[in-house]
Amino acid sequence: MRDNVAAAKAALSHLDIEGNDAAIRAKSRDFFWYSPVLKDRLDHVVADFVASPKNEGEVIEILKTCYAHDVPVTTRGAGTGNYGQAMPLAGGCVMHLRHMAAVKEVHPGRVIVEPGCLLKDLDAACKEHSGQEIRMFSSTWATATIGGFIAGGSGGVGSCTWGSLRDLGNIIRLRVVTMEEEPRVLEFRGEELARVSHAYGTNGIITEIEMPLAPAYEWVEMFLDVGDFMDAARFAEELANEDGILIKLATVFEAPVAFDYFQRVKPYVSEGSHLIGLMVAPQSMDGFLTFLARRPGVKLIYRHDDHDWARSPGPVFEYSWNHTTLRALKVDPSITYLQVRYGFPKHLDLIEKMQAEFSPEVLQHLEVLKENGKVMFAGLSLVKFTTEERLDEIIRIHEEAGAMIFNPHRYTLEEGGRQSVDDRQLVFKREADPKGLLNPGKMIAWDDPDWSYDRMYAYPKMQAAE
Amino acid sequence: MRDNVAAAKAALSHLDIEGNDAAIRAKSRDFFWYSPVLKDRLDHVVADFVASPKNEGEVIEILKTCYAHDVPVTTRGAGTGNYGQAMPLAGGCVMHLRHMAAVKEVHPGRVIVEPGCLLKDLDAACKEHSGQEIRMFSSTWATATIGGFIAGGSGGVGSCTWGSLRDLGNIIRLRVVTMEEEPRVLEFRGEELARVSHAYGTNGIITEIEMPLAPAYEWVEMFLDVGDFMDAARFAEELANEDGILIKLATVFEAPVAFDYFQRVKPYVSEGSHLIGLMVAPQSMDGFLTFLARRPGVKLIYRHDDHDWARSPGPVFEYSWNHTTLRALKVDPSITYLQVRYGFPKHLDLIEKMQAEFSPEVLQHLEVLKENGKVMFAGLSLVKFTTEERLDEIIRIHEEAGAMIFNPHRYTLEEGGRQSVDDRQLVFKREADPKGLLNPGKMIAWDDPDWSYDRMYAYPKMQAAE
Repeated sequence: MRDNVAAAKAALSHLDIEGNDAAIRAKSRDFFWYSPVLKDRLDHVVADFVASPKNEGEVIEILKTCYAHDVPVTTRGAGTGNYGQAMPLAGGCVMHLRHMAAVKEVHPGRVIVEPGCLLKDLDAACKEHSGQEIRMFSSTWATATIGGFIAGGSGGVGSCTWGSLRDLGNIIRLRVVTMEEEPRVLEFRGEELARVSHAYGTNGIITEIEMPLAPAYEWVEMFLDVGDFMDAARFAEELANEDGILIKLATVFEAPVAFDYFQRVKPYVSEGSHLIGLMVAPQSMDGFLTFLARRPGVKLIYRHDDHDWARSPGPVFEYSWNHTTLRALKVDPSITYLQVRYGFPKHLDLIEKMQAEFSPEVLQHLEVLKENGKVMFAGLSLVKFTTEERLDEIIRIHEEAGAMIFNPHRYTLEEGGRQSVDDRQLVFKREADPKGLLNPGKMIAWDDPDWSYDRMYAYPKMQAAE
Repeated sequence: MRDNVAAAKAALSHLDIEGNDAAIRAKSRDFFWYSPVLKDRLDHVVADFVASPKNEGEVIEILKTCYAHDVPVTTRGAGTGNYGQAMPLAGGCVMHLRHMAAVKEVHPGRVIVEPGCLLKDLDAACKEHSGQEIRMFSSTWATATIGGFIAGGSGGVGSCTWGSLRDLGNIIRLRVVTMEEEPRVLEFRGEELARVSHAYGTNGIITEIEMPLAPAYEWVEMFLDVGDFMDAARFAEELANEDGILIKLATVFEAPVAFDYFQRVKPYVSEGSHLIGLMVAPQSMDGFLTFLARRPGVKLIYRHDDHDWARSPGPVFEYSWNHTTLRALKVDPSITYLQVRYGFPKHLDLIEKMQAEFSPEVLQHLEVLKENGKVMFAGLSLVKFTTEERLDEIIRIHEEAGAMIFNPHRYTLEEGGRQSVDDRQLVFKREADPKGLLNPGKMIAWDDPDWSYDRMYAYPKMQAAE
């Protein structure tokens, strides 16, 4: 351990500090290993110590102390991100927010919560209080935190109705601590939210969150079997366009994803089954079953509240979004994935084209998403990985066709996003993190403003593999 | 009074029967007088007596007795419809459902209610029970009934989010009594709902309703002033496309509607002010104000929870939908209106074209509406009435341009709708009303199957004006 790091650690020793090597290593890792590219680059990355503050005062103390000693701070929740968001590339301190998990206030339509609260616990508290829940969550609901979701996520289960986290209204307020000689506490609303949401903690630490809520219903979770892939995609799109039918999830899995990777679903489908996963509000089930009956080619094979499956498949949303890749990976370690935007109005054409081009090397996994008031699809396509060159080629062909890629095989904000600098984030980083100590190596615009994006960015100060 | 009518009335004398001429006349009228065309045709129409059943058993008794005596029965709620839906063209019995107003059960996401319940009372009960309210309501919320809304309405405040009543999921279940020798009680769900919803009570009487609910919020009601009409229309469209901002109403009024017809708004606008009326969820106000600040040409002039207006303008929704026409009529009795569908994706082009063609003879009044998952507009244009010929010409020009008209100057289902027979309604009428006694004269397909729609239909058995 370098002297400055040791000094900072010593200065913080009255706090909850993890010094055990195995525990430090465990808490230095997120789900970067979804990507063989990131696995190759980041597997050795480890923090020097882990600090778990109990309140905002301790967050300030950690940031101030690490600032004084020039120690990098990478902040994390549960570490379920899979872009390497929470990997401490330059070592130093990992700040773990698990103790800051209080649900502070619940009101009609909104909640105030600390960042380390699990999505599951947040929903339980809001439901218990007044029959409410958060508008959207990642498929890692049971283990992920709300702060990690906002700092490192973009949307998920519920985005078929409410759009993405970045859309106006989906975050109300963020309280943020800066990393300066004297850290400041700022309250962001409106336009200011874009500075720090989805910024991986590179320019401030979120200590309190105000989010909108939606009513909590006993969502009816279902699987449907469809013989034709594009019929399945159209079914999901048309359902999401039914304004009177309230849904929380509409997912499409190309065959043979269900048969090959969903072990508890497998006995009830065939290799040729394209699967749809849904969450429908109970008061919308009459409307939904009417909609379904108009499409005799689509077969309802499972509903969680009325089925004869020998073993429950568990929550349907735990087959969706990033969980699809996770399940596939467990069966076939060579599987990785892409994140594709199939934008309105060309979404179905693009999907059909990409499916024809790549299946079965790339298998379509589609999530219905609202963007600018229109139903479109996010694709979290499953990719049978061979080489990095082939992966890059697959990405290039998508982009040339007009399907934007958010590359999950990159650890920087820019490469995992729209491959351009977000000036709001950069400008705020200059102000809030003048020494560049917050989650270093994740914002190219900070490290190398003239970067050309012609190849994968490699953070020059990344700790070397041993 | 004809003998058969007198006999039916006598047989029902143990029920709540209105025999007073002035009261009968009052209860024989709806808001048909919005239309100078309907006013000319229907002003003399009056029932012979009014029966107000207290429960489904009495509904059955009235229908059975009137069936036995061949007496027409026209059912009504508050009579706020303005297509003449509740006008008893052939006299006979008006069945008034005001006593059947119980809210029977409230559950998460749904309510079971009797048809005569006022929308206002229904919302109050659902809010009191569990912070819920109905998804959509007519601007006559304070006086209209839920049964009348379903039998004679199509959508309203809330349709910018939830679509129309006819969309799957916006009605869950209807309990219906037939008019046969032995009336039957039927329960309709799914596809069956289309038989009797928006059928004006021509083929069955609704005695119980199950509707979906949405969360009740303290909606923030606002007026905005915009200098350019198309900017105002685009503002409403773009706001409705913000997936993270929850709205219940977005209305656009071309200048000088606000200045000329909205007396309490007039002091705060100019003759050139195009006005927008909004209802936004309180948890979405931060997002909304951010959205607004991006459009410096749009000026927030009123919000109900923070204003310095000398006199409150009252609920903003009471300026919207049919209330716009009502307010204009009170100032200028020569005003009438149209109902236009400006469908996606040509809605803005069509609006611009119609505004250029007709303003100021026709002034645009637009309501944001979701249809098939897309934001579009319903137009309830204000028309300076001159002659029926000119009104027909205005309608024809709209239709030729591609803007569908639901003609509010006609009293039949077909002419006020898509000018075609609804087979589901007709087939069910054959079964449920074999003598054709339910609200006679309102379904052309029943009276004159070969009608050519080349002119306004005139019900041959309508009672003569004296």
